Formats: sequence, structure tokens, C-alpha cells
Amino acid sequence: MEIDVSDLAPLSLGAAILGTGGGGDPYIGELALRHLIEETAPPLVIDLDELADDALVVTVGTTGSPSVMLEKLINRSFADAPLRRFERLIGRKADAILPVEIGGVNSLVPLMTSCVTGLPVLDADGMGRAFPTLDRTSFGIAGISAFPIVTMNERRETVIVEASSHARGERIARGALVPMGASGSCAFYPMTGREAKQTTVGHTLSLALALGRAVLSARVAKSSPFEAILDVVARAGPGGYGRILFSGKIADVSRETVGGYNIGSGVIVSSDERRSARFAFQNEFLFVRDEQRLLAVVPDLICFLDSETAQPVTCETLRYGQRVTVMGFAATPHFRTPAGLAATGPRSFGLDEDYVPIERLTAAGPVG
Amino acid sequence: MEIDVSDLAPLSLGAAILGTGGGGDPYIGELALRHLIEETAPPLVIDLDELADDALVVTVGTTGSPSVMLEKLINRSFADAPLRRFERLIGRKADAILPVEIGGVNSLVPLMTSCVTGLPVLDADGMGRAFPTLDRTSFGIAGISAFPIVTMNERRETVIVEASSHARGERIARGALVPMGASGSCAFYPMTGREAKQTTVGHTLSLALALGRAVLSARVAKSSPFEAILDVVARAGPGGYGRILFSGKIADVSRETVGGYNIGSGVIVSSDERRSARFAFQNEFLFVRDEQRLLAVVPDLICFLDSETAQPVTCETLRYGQRVTVMGFAATPHFRTPAGLAATGPRSFGLDEDYVPIERLTAAGPVG
Repeated sequence: MEIDVSDLAPLSLGAAILGTGGGGDPYIGELALRHLIEETAPPLVIDLDELADDALVVTVGTTGSPSVMLEKLINRSFADAPLRRFERLIGRKADAILPVEIGGVNSLVPLMTSCVTGLPVLDADGMGRAFPTLDRTSFGIAGISAFPIVTMNERRETVIVEASSHARGERIARGALVPMGASGSCAFYPMTGREAKQTTVGHTLSLALALGRAVLSARVAKSSPFEAILDVVARAGPGGYGRILFSGKIADVSRETVGGYNIGSGVIVSSDERRSARFAFQNEFLFVRDEQRLLAVVPDLICFLDSETAQPVTCETLRYGQRVTVMGFAATPHFRTPAGLAATGPRSFGLDEDYVPIERLTAAGPVG
Repeated sequence: MEIDVSDLAPLSLGAAILGTGGGGDPYIGELALRHLIEETAPPLVIDLDELADDALVVTVGTTGSPSVMLEKLINRSFADAPLRRFERLIGRKADAILPVEIGGVNSLVPLMTSCVTGLPVLDADGMGRAFPTLDRTSFGIAGISAFPIVTMNERRETVIVEASSHARGERIARGALVPMGASGSCAFYPMTGREAKQTTVGHTLSLALALGRAVLSARVAKSSPFEAILDVVARAGPGGYGRILFSGKIADVSRETVGGYNIGSGVIVSSDERRSARFAFQNEFLFVRDEQRLLAVVPDLICFLDSETAQPVTCETLRYGQRVTVMGFAATPHFRTPAGLAATGPRSFGLDEDYVPIERLTAAGPVG
């Protein structure tokens, strides 16, 4: 399918929902992509089925502050530069582009590369959501190497990293990124078409688009956008399950920047002030629990949406008094295996908590 | 010429003299190179004249703590790994290896690569001494690009940097080096044979060997090693001029580590305690001045030698009460041009001082 200008608002809205509180400001991405489509050509999105098994797939995304990088990617001669450097490095042309994460602006970056190169973007990604750190991808968990990691800043300064583990590669790349200006555009995780079919989370660009369209339609129809989201997730979500977890207003939020991460926690109080829930985040939301029990925990998706408009609220912009509806969705099965949970579960974020699937936590019935 | 095991002691001694207080402990380098020669083959050194104009020359050296890296380079499968990665990156085999600096252990690293690869090492380098930072090379000053800079640690983790300036490239590579373990082996500054002939400091491996042999012979003959050094420098030094600048004992020395550099200053007092001189260093000695006047300043070479044995004393090991003879040698003409002085002169190290050639500063006669 072609993505046209009319798709951009729903796509960026849906990607922000799947951003689970992180992933940057999709509005900047929407403007940047709109500009690029008008200057070049619409991006092309293809299904995994349309890809040859021996095709070369290269993953692209931004690192550091994504909003900063997006403004640079508007430059059509830069939008394909990291991918082209990657191709020159490995001595082979890419056949398709893969988003590293569907949540937030990184869903739009591959589309920008597609506008300029004409290469198709796979309707898939490595997370079905947003996550910090490059080792939390479905393909990384499946054993696909992220290396070489090519990172380029807007001056076209380039760092190429090959390390002994994804965690070490990330630390080395972050060390180089600071003097590069703290933001970069990356090409990494090369894989074959067959590997992409086996290890990615499929249909996630479609999912983002469907989520955004459902919310926008509900706003026009004055029906519940939350019910519309639940309908889409039940039909097309990677885990096929969603729930409203809590509604109320933000009574407390604190955050700090630690090692480049946005880390914090807070409390929501129900409108009758009789119930409350606590939450924590590291770039993205990590868990929500009320007085009695855990309601959802990573890698399941936790989304804070404005209670009126269902507009996603990021961890960075969350503020006292804001009225939010918290939704939870089941994570992709890729993240629910033992290896998947080791990389993306609560203990991978330093939480002293076992993972329990959202379906089991919310089995007793509606909790909102 | 072939370097054999009997050359190693004089070579490492001479390289330590040209290290001007920096460049690491050459004794570890000597042991490592001896081990490698016994395991593989003697390194081959050729004159610039023997090199074809269209040959590919690649510069090698270590970064961070050179002593740490040398211990890893003993491993014959690692000694050529950075060069081989570089060749793979640019898609061409090297024809010769070039030392980045002759001062200190970096003079021995290319010889280790030669043992394993059989490639000849050019009898030349980029400094005719040691200096911190990779932009202080004769070829960098002449406009040769250092990029791509390939840095590999002992785990074979690799970072490849391409930046918009040498200063920025250095900052980015240093940012990556910290999580890599703070030490790496580098391949960089590719150039043609013609460029090497035009932009390197020639005959500096021979010079180091001649300096070491002269000192060792003088020790055996109980003649003055300092006179022996002056003889060699007058004949074969890149600037053809040397002087004894001061003799005395260290009365004061202070140092601190700032941004990975060993920065400090101190005072020497003459044996009759009637005269004194001050000095400063950043990895290598920057200047020496007595009460009346400047005696020598970078890029001219300032060497602290034990007053008994003429054993070079590094800035790191300098201590109170040590008896030293300070010698100065004229820098290579490459560093005395306006561009050379901009990169290597006193102001490039933050000193509020104009460069005056050592010949002029010491024209009034012996100052020691």
C-alpha cells in the first residue's frame, strides 16, 4: 500500500498510542514526513508475504532525541544517508526497510527513507510498541545480530560499531553519540527476507493506522474512542487483547534523567477519590498497580490517554491534574517467551516483580 | 632492513627519548615485540624511497593506555586485526604500514603488525616525537584525512569513525573508547606512497635506533651519553639541532588527570641551588624556562633524562629529588610552518606563549 498525506494524522496518532508513553513527539514526525512526501514521492508499505526469502532487509531508526533527528531527516539528501552508508559498508543493496519500533516517531523514519529511496517499508517492526535500548527487539531476541550498527548525525559524521554483545554495542554507540550531538539516525539489524518473516512483529504499521483512524472516527461520531481502540486491538493487536485499566486524574508525578533515560513514577486517583493506582516509567510505562494488585507490567503495553480525546500522553508531558484513561494491551508473543521476558520483562528494567500476562491480571472483569 | 632481537633494547630506548616524556612504557613494548618475533618473523623496515608512489600506506597505533594494548598485541591473531578490518572496510590491501608517532610504544606497534603480516614498516612517522591527539601529525597538517578511523579493543569490538574534522573525530572516538575499556588499537590515515613521501617525517625509526645505540655504547665506554645523543641528533635528527637545556634535581612536581590527559608542572633546581627552571606537560613536556627566559617550547622536543644513565624519564614517573638532565631538539620542519604551529605550537596546548625555535632561544651558547 501507498501511504498518502491523508494517512499521516491517523498513522502518527496510532504510533503515539503504541509508543506507550515514549517514542518522542509524533507531530514533528508527521510534519517532516508530509514535507518529504510533497517533495519526493509517497512511501510504499508492503506485507511480509510480498518479500522474497533471500531479500536483504535493513532496519532503520533514530537514537538519542528522536525529535531532533526528524528535523534533519526532512533534508532529502540526508533521509537515505545512513542506509546508503550501511549498504556501502556491507557491499550489498537493501531490498526493503524495516522499522525498529512502531511506537512513536521511529515508525515514521523508515517511511521518510522510503520516500527518498523508493524502497518498500515492511508492515512490521521489532517491538509492536516502543522500548528503550536496541536489544529489546523481537529479532535481537531471536538471535539476529544488530551489527554493524551505523549511526550518523546531521553533519554526516558516522560511527560504526561492532561489539561482542548488544548491550555492549549500545553502551559503545551511546559513548560516541554524546560528542556527536546526542542524536543520530541508525541503520542496523540486517536480515534476510526469511528472517524478517520469522522474527518481526507483523502488521504493525497497519495496526497504528487502524488505531489512529478508529480514534479520529470516534471523535467525529462522538462515540467512545476507548471502545474503538479495544475493537481494533482485539482484531489486529499483536497480542489480540486489550483492557481499560484505570481512569482518573494524575495526583502525583516525579521524574529524573538518569543515564540518558527519562525515569519516574506517579499516582492516579479515581474521580470519586476512593481508589488510586501507582505507575512507573523508563522512557515508556513499566507498570500500573492499584491498591490490591498489579494491573499490567512490561512487556505488555500500558498507554495513558487523555480521558476526553484519547490523545496519547507521553511520560515527558504527564502533569498534575491531567485526566487520563489508562489502557493495557497484550504484548507480542515474541516477548512472552522465556528469552523474550528475559530481555523485556519487569526484571530487565530492575523491577522486583514477576511477569504476569495482562489477560490473567484482568481476568476478574473490568477494572476501570 | 630487518629488525632483529638485538635491536629491540636500543630501539625502545631511542623511542623513549623521542617520547619527550610521554608515549607509555617502552619496556613492555620491547617484551611484547620480542615475544612476537620469536613466534613469527622479524619485522621488515623499508625506506620511503623503496615505496611505489601508488602503494597504499595505512597508519597504525594505539590509543588510550598504550601499555594495556601492547599486552594484547602479543596475541598474533590480534596484532593484525585492526589493519585487516581497515582493509576490508576500504576494499583494498595495504602495501606498507606507517607508525603514527615514533615516540614511545607506538613506534613498536607497527613492527608487531609487520611480524604477523609480513608487510614492511616505513622508516618514518607522523611526528618525529610523541604528541597527544591525532590531529598533531605531519600528514594531518598537510591535509591528509585520518578517516576512517578503525579502533579495536582486545575483544575485537570495533568502532569506525568518520567525522567532519580531526578534532571532532577524536572526541567521538574517545567517547566510544571509554565503554570499550579505554584502550584500543587503531588503523587510520590511509595514504598513497607519494603522499607518504611528501608528508611524513622520514628516517625516524633509524633515528630511534641510532639514539638508543649511542646511549648504550656510551654507557659501556663510560663516555657522556648526552654528547652521544647530541652527535646523533646533529647528524640525523629531523631538525638537526639539539642542546642540553638544564641539569638539576626535581624540586617540585604536581600532576592531575584531566579529560584523559596527564597534565602537570614542576620545578628543577641546579645542583648548586642557585638556578631553577620550571616546566609543564600534557602527556609530553610542553616547555622549560629558567628565571630569565624560555629554553624550549613545543613542538620542539623536550626530553628529561636521568643524569647518570641518560635513561628517559616520563612525565608519569617523574618524582621529587630525581636528578635529571633536560635536553631539547629542534622539531621537524613539518611542524614549523604556520599550519604546523597552529596544530602543534604552544597556543594549541592553551599556553599564552609564542613559539620561538630552540635554535634562537639557545643561540647565546650552552645553557646547561
